[in-house]
Amino acid sequence: MKIGFIGLGGMGSAMARNLIDAGHTVLAWNRSPDPVTELAAAGAVPASISEAFATGIVLSMLADDQAVTDRLLDPRVLTAAPAGALHVNMATVSTALAIQARREHAEHGLRYLAAPVFGRTDAARAGNLTIVTSGDPDTIAEVQPLFDVLGRRTWTVGDAPEHANLVKILGNYLIACSIEAMAEASAVIEAGGMNPATFIEVLTDNLFTGPVFTGYGRMIGNRDYEPVNFRLPLGLKDVQLALASGLERNVPLPFGGVLRDAFVDALAHGQTDQDWAAVTETARRRAGLA
Amino acid sequence: MKIGFIGLGGMGSAMARNLIDAGHTVLAWNRSPDPVTELAAAGAVPASISEAFATGIVLSMLADDQAVTDRLLDPRVLTAAPAGALHVNMATVSTALAIQARREHAEHGLRYLAAPVFGRTDAARAGNLTIVTSGDPDTIAEVQPLFDVLGRRTWTVGDAPEHANLVKILGNYLIACSIEAMAEASAVIEAGGMNPATFIEVLTDNLFTGPVFTGYGRMIGNRDYEPVNFRLPLGLKDVQLALASGLERNVPLPFGGVLRDAFVDALAHGQTDQDWAAVTETARRRAGLA
Amino acid sequence: MKIGFIGLGGMGSAMARNLIDAGHTVLAWNRSPDPVTELAAAGAVPASISEAFATGIVLSMLADDQAVTDRLLDPRVLTAAPAGALHVNMATVSTALAIQARREHAEHGLRYLAAPVFGRTDAARAGNLTIVTSGDPDTIAEVQPLFDVLGRRTWTVGDAPEHANLVKILGNYLIACSIEAMAEASAVIEAGGMNPATFIEVLTDNLFTGPVFTGYGRMIGNRDYEPVNFRLPLGLKDVQLALASGLERNVPLPFGGVLRDAFVDALAHGQTDQDWAAVTETARRRAGLA
Amino acid sequence: MKIGFIGLGGMGSAMARNLIDAGHTVLAWNRSPDPVTELAAAGAVPASISEAFATGIVLSMLADDQAVTDRLLDPRVLTAAPAGALHVNMATVSTALAIQARREHAEHGLRYLAAPVFGRTDAARAGNLTIVTSGDPDTIAEVQPLFDVLGRRTWTVGDAPEHANLVKILGNYLIACSIEAMAEASAVIEAGGMNPATFIEVLTDNLFTGPVFTGYGRMIGNRDYEPVNFRLPLGLKDVQLALASGLERNVPLPFGGVLRDAFVDALAHGQTDQDWAAVTETARRRAGLA
Repeated sequence: MKIGFIGLGGMGSAMARNLIDAGHTVLAWNRSPDPVTELAAAGAVPASISEAFATGIVLSMLADDQAVTDRLLDPRVLTAAPAGALHVNMATVSTALAIQARREHAEHGLRYLAAPVFGRTDAARAGNLTIVTSGDPDTIAEVQPLFDVLGRRTWTVGDAPEHANLVKILGNYLIACSIEAMAEASAVIEAGGMNPATFIEVLTDNLFTGPVFTGYGRMIGNRDYEPVNFRLPLGLKDVQLALASGLERNVPLPFGGVLRDAFVDALAHGQTDQDWAAVTETARRRAGLA
Repeated sequence: MKIGFIGLGGMGSAMARNLIDAGHTVLAWNRSPDPVTELAAAGAVPASISEAFATGIVLSMLADDQAVTDRLLDPRVLTAAPAGALHVNMATVSTALAIQARREHAEHGLRYLAAPVFGRTDAARAGNLTIVTSGDPDTIAEVQPLFDVLGRRTWTVGDAPEHANLVKILGNYLIACSIEAMAEASAVIEAGGMNPATFIEVLTDNLFTGPVFTGYGRMIGNRDYEPVNFRLPLGLKDVQLALASGLERNVPLPFGGVLRDAFVDALAHGQTDQDWAAVTETARRRAGLA
Repeated sequence: MKIGFIGLGGMGSAMARNLIDAGHTVLAWNRSPDPVTELAAAGAVPASISEAFATGIVLSMLADDQAVTDRLLDPRVLTAAPAGALHVNMATVSTALAIQARREHAEHGLRYLAAPVFGRTDAARAGNLTIVTSGDPDTIAEVQPLFDVLGRRTWTVGDAPEHANLVKILGNYLIACSIEAMAEASAVIEAGGMNPATFIEVLTDNLFTGPVFTGYGRMIGNRDYEPVNFRLPLGLKDVQLALASGLERNVPLPFGGVLRDAFVDALAHGQTDQDWAAVTETARRRAGLA
Repeated sequence: MKIGFIGLGGMGSAMARNLIDAGHTVLAWNRSPDPVTELAAAGAVPASISEAFATGIVLSMLADDQAVTDRLLDPRVLTAAPAGALHVNMATVSTALAIQARREHAEHGLRYLAAPVFGRTDAARAGNLTIVTSGDPDTIAEVQPLFDVLGRRTWTVGDAPEHANLVKILGNYLIACSIEAMAEASAVIEAGGMNPATFIEVLTDNLFTGPVFTGYGRMIGNRDYEPVNFRLPLGLKDVQLALASGLERNVPLPFGGVLRDAFVDALAHGQTDQDWAAVTETARRRAGLA
């Protein structure tokens, strides 16, 4: 199958490569040229955004709402795309953007599918992502073979384009809450003269299994926040997406306000390039431990 | 072995029964007589608190700090107990009480061991509790055979008596935070026109496994808070224990303030006899969904 | 003096009328025509935005960032304005917009002054506003005669264009915090079987004087939120401006998260058209009093 | 008139001296002897607590609930007091203690009146306190001549003994909220490159008059927290009293959780002996400004 792929960051590059390895012809675009060159060595065809759309099916994995708006909701791009072309947006964007994107695609006779993913670059490389999608069943069925290459499982969670984004945004919210809860508890443990790693070990042995608690728990318990998989500013961005998703639906999110402040505190202390698990240091600073 | 057991609530009764079934002679006391009568039918020996202490080893599972202070730190009880007798407190009490209890036992030539447990009545019945203890290794070794009857695993987490309580209190804090996080996220999901049960299913399939997220998640996703395993006022009591444990060690706990308010809100709305997972209704009320 | 005036809401109309009464010729524009017609009856000259700018000095009082961006940062407007023309923005806008507006005006050879005001429509009518400005002293001196018509006092608070906005935004933040604090305290008073009005009377007699506590206190104590001077959604908008001003400068604002949720809760309960003092009802609902 | 006075801290000493100066015979007791000696030089009669009660009317100004319970609810003291003797508790204590104290006094045939005060030592010295009382009108009338010596105004706010305490506790809550609000806003102002003192000057000129905003505002704006009138641990104690007063009446207090954490953070950073206005430094630390 011939497909376009827009956005070759860590996640996008890994995903596009899996599609190539599965035998697809991938027309790839990225803002900076290096990732395109690298992917071309693996068999990708460097392309413009319009050339990518010309294949009739484009997967995108751009950084944020702004990038999607600038690159893919540009009227010139949408006007040039062939009738009925399908854009599958796999990035974490706001529900407001999902609603707008679906509408603008429809106005140009195009189709839009939201399909954000859970999983980090290692899961992307392993074709092991969890894909969440929502919308028209026929469209989803059409893309399913590609999803099967990229992920371990696809969930269809609703019929509106923003439903998948809502699940993704609030899933990340649960992760952020889990990190903050472990960070706060670990600060008390440390102030009480104990080793947080022991605390985390007890809790993740049986009560809190699964990669979020065990993975981030290990980082928090050991105060070793490497490797950096998801930087603090991206974490703050996702907390803001959650707060906005609540605001638009009149839902207060008291944990969200706390998260926002904890991440802002981290940025105020120069932790910009650290993994979001390092928000633990905010809890330690507040307690005079750092 | 001949042992005393003080406090036959749902947890205590199940634990004492397992000790009887394992061949131990259990001298049992409870504030109200019915649980004693029931346990006597299974082979327990009704006893006074002092008779229980006279065995040389007493396990206790009382409701809260006040009950422990009133019943087991009574100078008459401590004075009457045989020299070197061991009191194993398996209830969730404050770290301040653990420190005080250890000191007062020592002043009377008695030994005190904190050994709170994770797990609800079904785990207690199945001898499947997770036991957390701290303190003198020889004492722990001495009680280990009893712990092996009661639980699936025993963790020794420190050398001070309050260390085990700290792990227990903050473990419950993590559970309460997880409930609140799922409740908030589910309110946005519901306000967004989706089914929270689907959201929970996606998140617990792979990212958040383990009994806390799957068990409470099912209750929250389905808004079905039965059976009542842990009532809301007990949840609030444990949040207060966490806040106090932070206060005494100068550790701010911003999620704790949010939890406190969510539980108080639930009590203000008559949810006194509901499971603490029903704090979900607070999140729904705030959003005008209830 | 001949001046332009853009934006004739409740505040803008009252301010423009005072300028007319002081003998100035006011070229007025508004999105909807009725306020222009009304003001024309008082002597204003209906005008386009470009005609207003052609006078060389324009005061604007538009609703929010979006309106300012759409109407006054339109490149066509800025290009058409005469060299050196001065735009005095008296509305409550974000500091980000102030920075951007100053830059874009400068790029077109125009001058931009931020001069937001404290005071409601009654103060505007009475020429009794408190005006906060920042920036070039010569420019401020030039506009001072107009400020003297509109307000009781002008404060120059800094040299950057956004400084005045920062003072205005955080001043409103103090007001919102004061309302929430009185609302929370009054809920305890009411739940304790007392009259909140008495509580407010005691507190504002001596400790908390000034219009914020006495004015909003009377509304809160009596649960009488009329007249509606500042609607809840505008209050939420200003809380969001404060949060954004903190976010951009890496300053956590924990009270801000609480305010956000209290206002969202009010909107979720249909209080859209009520004065922001009515956020008191959120505190009462949480306590099961409403 | 012959009266007893219990508790000669800064406030108590100033109040007792005013009573002496007004011609009353004051039998004074204090835990440590020095303040008694000092006051005796001004005319007081050193006395035991029971001798103080023997006068038939005792005013007390002890540090906290614990001191009141230990000294004045001691059954020996209450049993020895003459029938109908009146105890006027002017300290800031919990509403739970007020209820308990009234009951225990009644059980011993004694009368109890709550009459906490607003105002610091300078106001106490000047006889300028604001006195808040509640309960039996005849009893209040009986003490009014003494109140007139001590304060500028007496407010009767309800008929239950705890009503006066509720007003006092929540009044202090408003003060703490005002300090935190000014602290947070000032941190944004400082991070924005401005002088917080200017911000405070603008806000207290007209919107926020009264001693709380002007007095604490000056300390916050100048970051000069001297003189120490009310130490941070006392502030935290009062925040805890407010939280408890809400908890007992099922009223969530979201600002209270934030205050608690801000004060705990300050104590974690060694600010134990500073005035509670210095909680401003917590806001500055969070923003990386300290």
